Amino acid sequence: MEILKTVSEMQAWSDNIHQKQNQICLVPTMGYFHEGHLSLMEKGKEFCPDLVVSLFVNPTQFGENEDLDSYPANIERDVKLAEKKGVSVVFMPDKKEIYPDGFQTYVELTKLPGHLCGLSRPVHFRGVATVVTKLFNIVKPDVAIFGSKDFQQLQIIRRMVKDLNYNIKIVGCPIVREDDGLAMSSRNAYLSPEQRQIALCLSKSLEKAEDMILNGEKITSTVKKELASYIKSFSFTEIDYISICDPETLDEIGDGDINTADPLLIAMAVYVGRTRLIDNRIINPVQ
Amino acid sequence: MEILKTVSEMQAWSDNIHQKQNQICLVPTMGYFHEGHLSLMEKGKEFCPDLVVSLFVNPTQFGENEDLDSYPANIERDVKLAEKKGVSVVFMPDKKEIYPDGFQTYVELTKLPGHLCGLSRPVHFRGVATVVTKLFNIVKPDVAIFGSKDFQQLQIIRRMVKDLNYNIKIVGCPIVREDDGLAMSSRNAYLSPEQRQIALCLSKSLEKAEDMILNGEKITSTVKKELASYIKSFSFTEIDYISICDPETLDEIGDGDINTADPLLIAMAVYVGRTRLIDNRIINPVQ
Repeated sequence: MEILKTVSEMQAWSDNIHQKQNQICLVPTMGYFHEGHLSLMEKGKEFCPDLVVSLFVNPTQFGENEDLDSYPANIERDVKLAEKKGVSVVFMPDKKEIYPDGFQTYVELTKLPGHLCGLSRPVHFRGVATVVTKLFNIVKPDVAIFGSKDFQQLQIIRRMVKDLNYNIKIVGCPIVREDDGLAMSSRNAYLSPEQRQIALCLSKSLEKAEDMILNGEKITSTVKKELASYIKSFSFTEIDYISICDPETLDEIGDGDINTADPLLIAMAVYVGRTRLIDNRIINPVQ
Repeated sequence: MEILKTVSEMQAWSDNIHQKQNQICLVPTMGYFHEGHLSLMEKGKEFCPDLVVSLFVNPTQFGENEDLDSYPANIERDVKLAEKKGVSVVFMPDKKEIYPDGFQTYVELTKLPGHLCGLSRPVHFRGVATVVTKLFNIVKPDVAIFGSKDFQQLQIIRRMVKDLNYNIKIVGCPIVREDDGLAMSSRNAYLSPEQRQIALCLSKSLEKAEDMILNGEKITSTVKKELASYIKSFSFTEIDYISICDPETLDEIGDGDINTADPLLIAMAVYVGRTRLIDNRIINPVQ
């Protein structure tokens, strides 16, 4: 396994692979690997043997009051885990390599970021779309793998790839959960033991919502109210949003507008203490 | 010469060229070719035999009150001229092919568009950067050729290529002028015979500015005032801007701040009747 730190080394490696008519798969990450990341690498290996994992804590996707400086890291462990998974290259640039002096070009979407996490994290998806565009031009992948815990991110990447005509297959992978249901996240490391228990309210309330809708509840505001009151019953919690929306457009589904022919997305962001957690579930309503 | 109209045909053509280890050169245009365009194609042929000319009047770079609907076109003539110049492919998509329903992704720069033409054309460079990004992903060129009549556009493309890590060599070509000095432009077709004569005030005032600065004038506001009063002496004229600025950052150079070690850019946009014309000149001040 190679560890590459500069754009030009990475581009040269990728050009060499392509000259041999081989394909490249990219798994973009911010490091501090958990089972979720490892599942993306496993999926990547199914597509091509030449698997690149990028490891870069991208400053432009953090707002001013967010956790850029405290974001958990363990590069030595990450490198070992990547090697075990059969990764070909860990691309690990420093911030100046990605954002040199005078940097001023951003990729922005006009609609999808105006929902869910984009509302409380106004610069987040601009940063994500920009760094992913850069990684696509640096790594030149044929396939790129993303988790679906940040479902909005996945949809934004899909739209961006289509809009900017990248010839890259985007693969979304299921959320990986702890045995008790908590969605895996690098940010779970911030939780105290007590908060770790409380954090289960996200996955449990998604199950609750699925039950209500599968049992015929058509009034989305009723489902959201029920979830909100359940989550608020735990100490340390503060709801950022609970949304029931169209998985493609992310537009909210109004009371009575549930169309049993289409899947819907239930997504939420909840603070547990100072840690902001997200989770979501796609539901196929039945008649 | 092939004429390709879809993104997938164009990408397949380019992938095939690259598989043969050959390079591709792109000349992006909005058509209605004049000697300026033809000079870009000639320059392109110096770099690679596989030359693609795109011909697309890009709606996103026109403001609401601009001349999108009246932009001059003569596709039959353009195709013949391209063939004569040894072009391999004319890429001529329709608007829906480039901007399908739901399109919402834009490439924006935060600083360079806040100068010169960007001030009176607020969406222009967002449209340019977006369509050029798309063309780069569709045509996958190794070299791309741009004229320097729109010097700000050339600098924006250079910065964007660097910021987004495109491995593409950007080549700027000199302005091609009519015998009497008028910079060639598709928009010159809008001018009446009388306006055509008056339009010479742009190139003549650039010469005037060069003379003043080469003769030691250090007060940029004096040069700009002189040029403005010269241009205003012609009927039908209305000045959008006259700028003396740093060719890299496009920041205005204040009175007395001319550094004789560095080149400077004199750039202007002037309406002649309802036709907005631009011109510029790089000057190397002497001590």
